[in-house]
Amino acid sequence: MTHATDMIEAYPKDINNDRELLARCIEACVDCAQACTACADACLSEDMVQGLTKCIRSNLDCADICAVTGRVLSRHTGYDANITRASLQACSQVCKSCGDICEQHASKHDHCRICAEVCRGCEKACQEVLSSL
Amino acid sequence: MTHATDMIEAYPKDINNDRELLARCIEACVDCAQACTACADACLSEDMVQGLTKCIRSNLDCADICAVTGRVLSRHTGYDANITRASLQACSQVCKSCGDICEQHASKHDHCRICAEVCRGCEKACQEVLSSL
Amino acid sequence: MTHATDMIEAYPKDINNDRELLARCIEACVDCAQACTACADACLSEDMVQGLTKCIRSNLDCADICAVTGRVLSRHTGYDANITRASLQACSQVCKSCGDICEQHASKHDHCRICAEVCRGCEKACQEVLSSL
Amino acid sequence: MTHATDMIEAYPKDINNDRELLARCIEACVDCAQACTACADACLSEDMVQGLTKCIRSNLDCADICAVTGRVLSRHTGYDANITRASLQACSQVCKSCGDICEQHASKHDHCRICAEVCRGCEKACQEVLSSL
Repeated sequence: MTHATDMIEAYPKDINNDRELLARCIEACVDCAQACTACADACLSEDMVQGLTKCIRSNLDCADICAVTGRVLSRHTGYDANITRASLQACSQVCKSCGDICEQHASKHDHCRICAEVCRGCEKACQEVLSSL
Repeated sequence: MTHATDMIEAYPKDINNDRELLARCIEACVDCAQACTACADACLSEDMVQGLTKCIRSNLDCADICAVTGRVLSRHTGYDANITRASLQACSQVCKSCGDICEQHASKHDHCRICAEVCRGCEKACQEVLSSL
Repeated sequence: MTHATDMIEAYPKDINNDRELLARCIEACVDCAQACTACADACLSEDMVQGLTKCIRSNLDCADICAVTGRVLSRHTGYDANITRASLQACSQVCKSCGDICEQHASKHDHCRICAEVCRGCEKACQEVLSSL
Repeated sequence: MTHATDMIEAYPKDINNDRELLARCIEACVDCAQACTACADACLSEDMVQGLTKCIRSNLDCADICAVTGRVLSRHTGYDANITRASLQACSQVCKSCGDICEQHASKHDHCRICAEVCRGCEKACQEVLSSL
């Protein structure tokens, strides 16, 4: 469905990371960014939005940081492990925070349940790339 | 693989668009944003980067506009058809421009060939949602 | 305060636009993106957030589209008037929509009053560049 | 010129950070994101672009991470110090890396000289907020 793996395989020079781990993490970041954007909006449309403002804020932060981490990981030219590591650490942290908050609303709101799962998956994918650096 | 459809199905209120078309277009935008980011970087690593600067610029514009269009389409609360339409028109335009330029390099660079296809697909997905508004 | 003008003056080739109009519009886009991000968050912290969900959504759309328009305008290499025009039209539209909604809450919320003014200024700056293309 | 301070003053609840430091850091992030976007494009237009690909990549990473850090700092509702800290650390790191690379080209390219200064300023602003957390 996505072309992250195809684009990594088409990269014309060496890549300083495991290509499979990298592709999986890029896909996880991009998917998590979309899910968090949608979850923030779904929370906004709930009748009890007042109780979901902390969740919306963490969704927005998570969407932004995941999207950017997916972009940083998509660039291999002029590779700098310090930038990759710092991005992955921020992404892992925000996925943990957002996953924790969404999980608290998982039984009431399907969008929070799905989003929590996606955040957990993205956190794990970031940790795997971090371990491989 | 992605959760765009799941998140649309979990949206708790009505959506003023065809949910299937919408999910497909969100996925196309998000995938195109990633492919264009990767293509810009792959172009940067080519020995003949001097001849690819126009391609890199259109990749960067396309990555940015596709990413934002995917976000706008992921929000349904407070729906405003004018914003959706203007975003889709900009996205369709940049996908056309970027697809045209990448296509010129398709026989030499696999990343441009793949990226051109992804841009064509995203342009088509945007046009389909535009027609349905 | 910002370096948009300095960076335009340091651009080593010709620019196919009025440099002063361009710098002003980049600054307006970047500032509007920040104001809208902050306004969405301030709305989230209001006790009457339920009545502000449409405003938050338009703030988020406006923040995203203004940010990307500022980026598109910051690139001159491989200039394509079609992309610039489509971006500016989307940005002008979303600034109008967001300015209209924020204005409705201007007497109650200072953040909406300021944000409406910033949106109006950004819409005008976009229109001025559009007229000059 | 920018409205970061006005928007912070209009925030209706308490903010868990020094408002002045915060406003300065938001402005620095937003300005650095724009300068790096412009520097990447100016590098692309140089005749010796082949020698600037590492600089362009770090410009693109820095633009993305600074922009997102400015957004994270613009949100106070549902404040989570862990997210703020991780974002600021990533931003500080990428500003250091990008500032170092741009500085190497400062004597040849004005855009790199200006961009290096802006990166240094943003790194410092991030460190100041980090120290105050």
